Amino acid sequence: MPQAPGTLLGIGDDAALLAAPDGRMLASMDLLIEGRHFRRDWSTALDIGVKAAAQNLADIAAMGGLPTALLVGLAAPPDLPVAWAEDLAAGLAQECGRAGASVVGGDISAAPLVMLAVTALGHLAGEAPVTRSGARPGDVVALAGMLGHSAAGLALLQAGRTKPAALLAAHRRPQPDYAAGPEAARLGATAMIDVSDGLVQDLGHVADGSGVRIDLESGRLPQDDTLRAAADALGKRNPLDWILTGGEDHSLAATFPPGTPLPARWVIVGRVETGRGVRVDSRRSEGLSGWDHFLGPDTLH
Amino acid sequence: MPQAPGTLLGIGDDAALLAAPDGRMLASMDLLIEGRHFRRDWSTALDIGVKAAAQNLADIAAMGGLPTALLVGLAAPPDLPVAWAEDLAAGLAQECGRAGASVVGGDISAAPLVMLAVTALGHLAGEAPVTRSGARPGDVVALAGMLGHSAAGLALLQAGRTKPAALLAAHRRPQPDYAAGPEAARLGATAMIDVSDGLVQDLGHVADGSGVRIDLESGRLPQDDTLRAAADALGKRNPLDWILTGGEDHSLAATFPPGTPLPARWVIVGRVETGRGVRVDSRRSEGLSGWDHFLGPDTLH
Repeated sequence: MPQAPGTLLGIGDDAALLAAPDGRMLASMDLLIEGRHFRRDWSTALDIGVKAAAQNLADIAAMGGLPTALLVGLAAPPDLPVAWAEDLAAGLAQECGRAGASVVGGDISAAPLVMLAVTALGHLAGEAPVTRSGARPGDVVALAGMLGHSAAGLALLQAGRTKPAALLAAHRRPQPDYAAGPEAARLGATAMIDVSDGLVQDLGHVADGSGVRIDLESGRLPQDDTLRAAADALGKRNPLDWILTGGEDHSLAATFPPGTPLPARWVIVGRVETGRGVRVDSRRSEGLSGWDHFLGPDTLH
Repeated sequence: MPQAPGTLLGIGDDAALLAAPDGRMLASMDLLIEGRHFRRDWSTALDIGVKAAAQNLADIAAMGGLPTALLVGLAAPPDLPVAWAEDLAAGLAQECGRAGASVVGGDISAAPLVMLAVTALGHLAGEAPVTRSGARPGDVVALAGMLGHSAAGLALLQAGRTKPAALLAAHRRPQPDYAAGPEAARLGATAMIDVSDGLVQDLGHVADGSGVRIDLESGRLPQDDTLRAAADALGKRNPLDWILTGGEDHSLAATFPPGTPLPARWVIVGRVETGRGVRVDSRRSEGLSGWDHFLGPDTLH
């Protein structure tokens, strides 16, 4: 595994040692379970490595941080081909490289199915962390990245489709825009979250954490022809529920004080108001749900 | 979860934020898989929480570090009783408290069996890390903590025994002496390792990493009447193989320059020589093996 500059001691000891240049370290962990978060017949080992890295590195970006390192636990059946594990490692390394991070440690164990545990570490370069709790009435809500592509890709796989390739790829190998996170912190974002479980559900965490209401305008949400074509192909009326409730695109949603000049990658999609919950076009969104960790409608089965 | 002082942001955001007072952070991860690392009929949820925390916190101590935080991933069947998860959390918090650390984040997921992924973080308080690669010929090899108690406890459980309680407890709830790690760093330890897979196997990593031979004297290894009584009860000739190859006691083995004045908890058990490998009473130890992550003789089945 290639090592990024902040790795003072990498793989090979009881623990890795990492630079924490401003005296603080961000840390986050996600689990990926075979049959629930990925299927080995739908994704290659490289895909799964990329995805496992991406979703964890995105959590660091969502705090305004720069990801520096991953620890990876791999539990696998003893008959897992070594080449599969090597491809997984290649995918992890590839996505780490895109983010400026590296795999610095981890663990392996036998288990009846493939399970990945990934911890991402990173630092804030002296900035304040951007939490879920700082949104204030009057702030704008802005989005960096696409929505619904991963959910559409999953729906296509579930229907046995092999096109469009871009949507299948979005599901298999999300490519978060890591630089958007620290950029938002520098711009004075008041709150931020990684859209991993669905826009409405994740902005619900911001609304709850900040004690505010979030109003989304569906006409401002990013749609594109590919998504509409996939909806048509699957007999869906429109792709809006993918956009509002689909997870795993790992776009960033942030709130900014009104009037903050936003670079092009940030698209304003709504506004923060007094109240509670999330509304879409002035309607309450309670009927819209995203991923539930035990009952999720997006389960792969 | 109670939060230790170094927690700048704990549970509830995309990532936790931790103090890294000397600008560096230690990080380590272990997996614990049901049926392989624990059995729910042999250990309570509290036991498993304590053990999961202890084995990870010990990895930080083994670098000479002070543990500060854990991230915990829990994958579990949807029908896992909530009380079991609560007791697990209580065990994690209890052992974190003993070490001065706290649980600052993690993840949950459904899975067909219980799997824990634990990342431990900590800092070095300005000291140099103690790695596996610094042992030099002439150094003494010293041990802080007991050996073989966890292996004896496992053997008793496998034989359906319920006594002696101290050995069963050693298997279920290891209690590492965390302070021994930073103490060894301050004393100038040249190498150190957490004895998790068995003394011979783990010192083999030090011998390999340092390019030296390690000679152990079996007469100096800590034995006690409880261990001998357990060996008698199970018809074993003596408990030496538990002591040499049993894992999971999470004692610390370290090498020190000759003449280093060692506090009482450190017992000299051998010497570093030129050469390679580990010898016990001048005999090569190749026949002695500890835990193998896929084939281990200590498997719970």
